Amino acid sequence: MSLLYDERLDGALPSVDKQQLLTAIRDEIPSLQILHRPAELRPYECDGLAAYRTTPLLVALPENTQQVQALMRLASRLQVPVVARGAGTGLSGGALPLEKGILLVLARLNKILEVNPEAGIARVQPGVRNAAISEAAAPHNMYYAPDPSSQIACSIGGNVAENAGGVHCLKYGLTVHNIMQLQIVTVDGELLTLGSHALDSAGFDLMALFTGSEGMLGIVTEITVKLLTRPQCIKVLLGSYSSVEAAATAVADIIAAGIVPAGLEMMDNMSIRAAEDFIQAGYPVDAAAILLCEIDGVVSDVEDDCQLVEGVMRAAGADDVRVAHDPQERQRFWAGRKNAFPAVGRISPDYYCMDGTIPRRQLSLVLTRIAELSEEYGLRVANVFHAGDGNMHPLILFDANEEGQLEQAEALGGKILELCVQVGGTITGEHGVGREKINQMCVQFSSDELTYFHAVKAAFDADGLLNPGKNIPTLNRCAEFGAMHIHRGQMPFPELERF
Amino acid sequence: MSLLYDERLDGALPSVDKQQLLTAIRDEIPSLQILHRPAELRPYECDGLAAYRTTPLLVALPENTQQVQALMRLASRLQVPVVARGAGTGLSGGALPLEKGILLVLARLNKILEVNPEAGIARVQPGVRNAAISEAAAPHNMYYAPDPSSQIACSIGGNVAENAGGVHCLKYGLTVHNIMQLQIVTVDGELLTLGSHALDSAGFDLMALFTGSEGMLGIVTEITVKLLTRPQCIKVLLGSYSSVEAAATAVADIIAAGIVPAGLEMMDNMSIRAAEDFIQAGYPVDAAAILLCEIDGVVSDVEDDCQLVEGVMRAAGADDVRVAHDPQERQRFWAGRKNAFPAVGRISPDYYCMDGTIPRRQLSLVLTRIAELSEEYGLRVANVFHAGDGNMHPLILFDANEEGQLEQAEALGGKILELCVQVGGTITGEHGVGREKINQMCVQFSSDELTYFHAVKAAFDADGLLNPGKNIPTLNRCAEFGAMHIHRGQMPFPELERF
Repeated sequence: MSLLYDERLDGALPSVDKQQLLTAIRDEIPSLQILHRPAELRPYECDGLAAYRTTPLLVALPENTQQVQALMRLASRLQVPVVARGAGTGLSGGALPLEKGILLVLARLNKILEVNPEAGIARVQPGVRNAAISEAAAPHNMYYAPDPSSQIACSIGGNVAENAGGVHCLKYGLTVHNIMQLQIVTVDGELLTLGSHALDSAGFDLMALFTGSEGMLGIVTEITVKLLTRPQCIKVLLGSYSSVEAAATAVADIIAAGIVPAGLEMMDNMSIRAAEDFIQAGYPVDAAAILLCEIDGVVSDVEDDCQLVEGVMRAAGADDVRVAHDPQERQRFWAGRKNAFPAVGRISPDYYCMDGTIPRRQLSLVLTRIAELSEEYGLRVANVFHAGDGNMHPLILFDANEEGQLEQAEALGGKILELCVQVGGTITGEHGVGREKINQMCVQFSSDELTYFHAVKAAFDADGLLNPGKNIPTLNRCAEFGAMHIHRGQMPFPELERF
Repeated sequence: MSLLYDERLDGALPSVDKQQLLTAIRDEIPSLQILHRPAELRPYECDGLAAYRTTPLLVALPENTQQVQALMRLASRLQVPVVARGAGTGLSGGALPLEKGILLVLARLNKILEVNPEAGIARVQPGVRNAAISEAAAPHNMYYAPDPSSQIACSIGGNVAENAGGVHCLKYGLTVHNIMQLQIVTVDGELLTLGSHALDSAGFDLMALFTGSEGMLGIVTEITVKLLTRPQCIKVLLGSYSSVEAAATAVADIIAAGIVPAGLEMMDNMSIRAAEDFIQAGYPVDAAAILLCEIDGVVSDVEDDCQLVEGVMRAAGADDVRVAHDPQERQRFWAGRKNAFPAVGRISPDYYCMDGTIPRRQLSLVLTRIAELSEEYGLRVANVFHAGDGNMHPLILFDANEEGQLEQAEALGGKILELCVQVGGTITGEHGVGREKINQMCVQFSSDELTYFHAVKAAFDADGLLNPGKNIPTLNRCAEFGAMHIHRGQMPFPELERF
């Protein structure tokens, strides 16, 4: 691998003549809409990780796959890097632009091409909103299962890039488990089909490889998703606990009882209070923790399982267990959980949202350790969990205007992610690596493992033009990061640009 | 990619000095057991696809991961190809040896390293039998879900190589959905960890890429599998139909009703009669088709779902629906299905087992077309299906001693696989590509797609030493096959060596 490749992967890019690039695009793809004036570019300078901002060289807004192919052919020829962007709701900076690169915005590829209830599939373009797929399938009593909290806004293409999860991924799986086929445009502008409409595909599973690859292997231009029949019946239980440990025990016991809830979420007292203040979800504000457990299926099954879950929750020490009496109450219960992040945003000038995954059995240990770290660093931490699958979202509360607090938040965040790796987990759950966690990847993976990541990257994009500097760190970066690590005597957090 | 690579991938290998290789292995890895005499090598000349036979240069039987690493380092240095083999039960010739290569038999890496019921995992070596994992987990009331019909004999390492399915993969997924982490030895003898013990991993999903890669990317030496809690209750329904179409409708209707059976299998009249003669399963021998539907879960759920399924089966036109009254009858129902292949073997001198996957909605169409093809070619076809997920196993009955019948069986088989691709399916379900379907891959995939398969292969094994000539055809092969295709005016089947 050339040094150029290694450097480019790390974001050290050669300069591009903007005017020359603009002229080439206008000559060769006259129908393609391009934004290039500073005021036009401003809205695209960051995604959901707003702490990082870069103005792109220019923004391309293709309206069809042919334009994407033509643009990639041109970018390859001129060796200009390309960052793909969906709705820009990502939380790890995966769509952070490059000042020497094209930002390829797929928002206008927003057609639902086919809804086939008989086959249980929908074929959609990448700019289609996650929730819009379920809306289009609703007349057939079907829906698309993965539901990130941002589902009203986030795009299915971004979901593929990040292998997004959501409240229901415990029972219904991540994005990769709910898609069947991808059409992608390669770095050279070729059109490829990955996967098939059948259960399994021959050859290497490139569809699974592509899913979660954060725009580094190609540009997705069409997705065939699975549609599920809407469950006959949905019930949500809310269990209140006076200790976090008891709630964690209940989580393990529910799973061990052989029940697969549609969702199993946990919130700690700080999150409960913040959500209740914001949304009036009907949460018990004195509880140390609550569990929200959703059961879906045919009516009689759901009723039986609800009784079972209630029994398990009480046996684990629940002070109270309530079942939502009607769809309105059920939606209120979920509204509190789904708005936990903005709710916490109301009680602190700034917060930093973490996203790690741990083995379920380590839940109680990790929560105890986070509480200790919180005290040690003098910063409050609110905990919101996809408890059933061990995906944690600790929110570190701080005030960027207070001297040193951002650094403390960074350091605490690093410690929490390090803790996730120590107990056998990973540094990402569903938000991806992006720009945010590029250094933590050096902790998670050995240089042997990274070498194979690079080899796979090179198989698809030998020149490193697709989203360089994200997701997979270079060995150079890890060598520097390792040195820094030793120097500072603790795992540092990526240098955030200041708010 | 060099021509050497392309040729080697296609099995045209440089000669190896056997004596020199033996001496090198004995010098460098004295503890490694090697078989090299013709009589010792004979048992290893084929796997479950016994129509293809090759005597390997020598057989290595490592007893630990260090020996596998040392052997791969030596093989890489001397540029000797290596074919990995588990229990040798594979049906597509994936473990067919090379006469100029080492057969690396992983059968002695057969330790169960850890069973952790709390975490819901087991850590095992690749030579562990599939069924042995569930046996080891049984004291904890847990089991490993994927259950190929060969589960008594087949090894978990082979299951990973082929991404094996089974009767229960409709509800519980394929091998890739039931493993969490792989330890592999690379072609250079490095040890790598793919995946994690958490729900999702950062970086590219190399574990999914490796699963089903048929020994072409590395040698798996340790597998962490998921264990599930054994369901409280299991029931099996048997529905009898006087038309195949009605049975196919019932399959679609059961899935559409929102029920996820643990298994949903279909057999046609010829399979029913053969199985009944062989096993006395209690099947209705006059039915055109039967459906076997297994429901598992907590007691009350299972009872409710059974009633629902019975209703759907009857509404679709079932002449009769029976529920197995006790575990013995349930096991008899399944025994007929699981022994369908040997049962068909009793009514025909030879049979050829196909393995294709089609979208579920195409079931009825494909069955009708197979019946027409059967008539056209003058050969009987018995149909056994994982109906719920569209994975078909048509068995083509023929007599190799009758002039021309093998060729007819080959041609008919090719037509059936072509049909699978035409209706939007694939040429493999769970048996893999191996040597058997290497030419059909040229029909399934475009040269662009194959180019990316090769690039991924090269990322892991640039010299093409791992299982060359299997799974992924070279572009040369496809060019020749395409020419042959046009020449003969029909899709030819791979030239089988004669029985």
